[in-house]
Amino acid sequence: MSGTTRNATSPIGIFDSGVGGLTVVRAVADALPSERLVYLGDTARVPYGSKSADTVLRYSVLSTRFLLSHDVKMILVACNTASAFAMSELAALLPVPVLGAIEPGARAALAATKTGRIGVLGTLGTVRSAAYPRALARLAAEAGGLPIEITAKACPLLVPLAEEGWLDDPVAEAVARRYLGELHAEAPSLDVLVLGCTHYPLLRQVLTRVAAEIWSHPVTLVDSAGAMAARARLELERLELLHPTATGTLQTFVTDDARIEEIGTRFLGRPLGTVTRVDL
Amino acid sequence: MSGTTRNATSPIGIFDSGVGGLTVVRAVADALPSERLVYLGDTARVPYGSKSADTVLRYSVLSTRFLLSHDVKMILVACNTASAFAMSELAALLPVPVLGAIEPGARAALAATKTGRIGVLGTLGTVRSAAYPRALARLAAEAGGLPIEITAKACPLLVPLAEEGWLDDPVAEAVARRYLGELHAEAPSLDVLVLGCTHYPLLRQVLTRVAAEIWSHPVTLVDSAGAMAARARLELERLELLHPTATGTLQTFVTDDARIEEIGTRFLGRPLGTVTRVDL
Repeated sequence: MSGTTRNATSPIGIFDSGVGGLTVVRAVADALPSERLVYLGDTARVPYGSKSADTVLRYSVLSTRFLLSHDVKMILVACNTASAFAMSELAALLPVPVLGAIEPGARAALAATKTGRIGVLGTLGTVRSAAYPRALARLAAEAGGLPIEITAKACPLLVPLAEEGWLDDPVAEAVARRYLGELHAEAPSLDVLVLGCTHYPLLRQVLTRVAAEIWSHPVTLVDSAGAMAARARLELERLELLHPTATGTLQTFVTDDARIEEIGTRFLGRPLGTVTRVDL
Repeated sequence: MSGTTRNATSPIGIFDSGVGGLTVVRAVADALPSERLVYLGDTARVPYGSKSADTVLRYSVLSTRFLLSHDVKMILVACNTASAFAMSELAALLPVPVLGAIEPGARAALAATKTGRIGVLGTLGTVRSAAYPRALARLAAEAGGLPIEITAKACPLLVPLAEEGWLDDPVAEAVARRYLGELHAEAPSLDVLVLGCTHYPLLRQVLTRVAAEIWSHPVTLVDSAGAMAARARLELERLELLHPTATGTLQTFVTDDARIEEIGTRFLGRPLGTVTRVDL
């Protein structure tokens, strides 16, 4: 796609529908402190989670092409909905390794479950795609046919809650109680909950507390961010593309810059620095 | 823009960022039952309410150009955020009369207030634009300098609540209590609340009940839909463009069709009929 040679000093591209993927940036910066990171949040078209597969694919292609124009050596699709709907097309289309959010999240869930009964919280799109149940079934089969039972629950209000910053208050609690209560009715014996959206780790505290109330046994919450970062590290090692020197940086691009300072800082856990707006 | 002559039998175009504008379609169909209506919901890019002025303007221009290609005789910008950010540009650009949501809502608020103290609930964009306070100040000055005091409150969670269909339950109540409680602290003596977003009329019941709890005096809730329909009727009469015969129809276009049946029916109050997906 680009004539430039990609090598170990090239950046890693990370793409999300909005600012949620900054939770993945945070994990990658921790696991790979020497790497240059280029982040694109498609904030003009956010959210993807309530939109259809072909809209999500179209926007994902535009976004990843933008990252390629920065000569990235690898692309992380932080957005679970984009990973659910567009991974095979992106992997076929892009001339660099592409890692999605679903498989790392599914691996983390399988590592954490004792009973094989797993709940997945996600956007409408991620749940409709059935990408987590498919990935979990495949990984469980590879692990020797571990019996599993997956129950997925779409939680459309968690993204706006996280963006509003109502992370642990009566409203967050009422929302968590409703979604987790409905999930409990279907899956009373699950022991792992996958936070299947980059926004949800911000709500981990209230979700953990409400889950402990609702289920009468311990429930472990897992998310993709740490697992994606670990997987990216392994893959770069294998390809001998780890950056050799300590020059870790972050360049952030967004397609709309309303509220980016405030919300971005909440997701990254530190100030964002310079943010550049681009039209795709 | 188009070579076709527009006349009384041409349709009325109604545009919204998503499905919320169907509350306006409902009011227009009631007030003007003979008219052909063409509705466009920009559901692939929804919401506009959290995005910046120039993103909203760009999408609004694309959307209204689509309506023009259907030879509409008038365009109603049902979306308050688009009305707040793009009305003067759209009015200058489009070769047909354009009515926005802000002025009709402001007129309805002035007609309802006894004290001149008015609260406006809206999206982040609508509140940031200060379009309601500007329109209210202008209309109050035209009415002879009626003293007014406007307090606006951004309510980002009300749109996802209305789309989720949680219209009158413990979560809706907790959200309403928080937003209206914060507004009450700033404006304890308002007597009118403007529902400054096409989604909010669906939450009228819970907002009315919580407002009655929080303010110790009567508070009237007003919205733009009925006022926009009445204004459209007057304008078409003045231009001698009222449709002469009873052939009222609705054609619905969306840029993304996920969940459109379910959510559209909730907003229109009856089944939507055929919905056509278009790429803009």
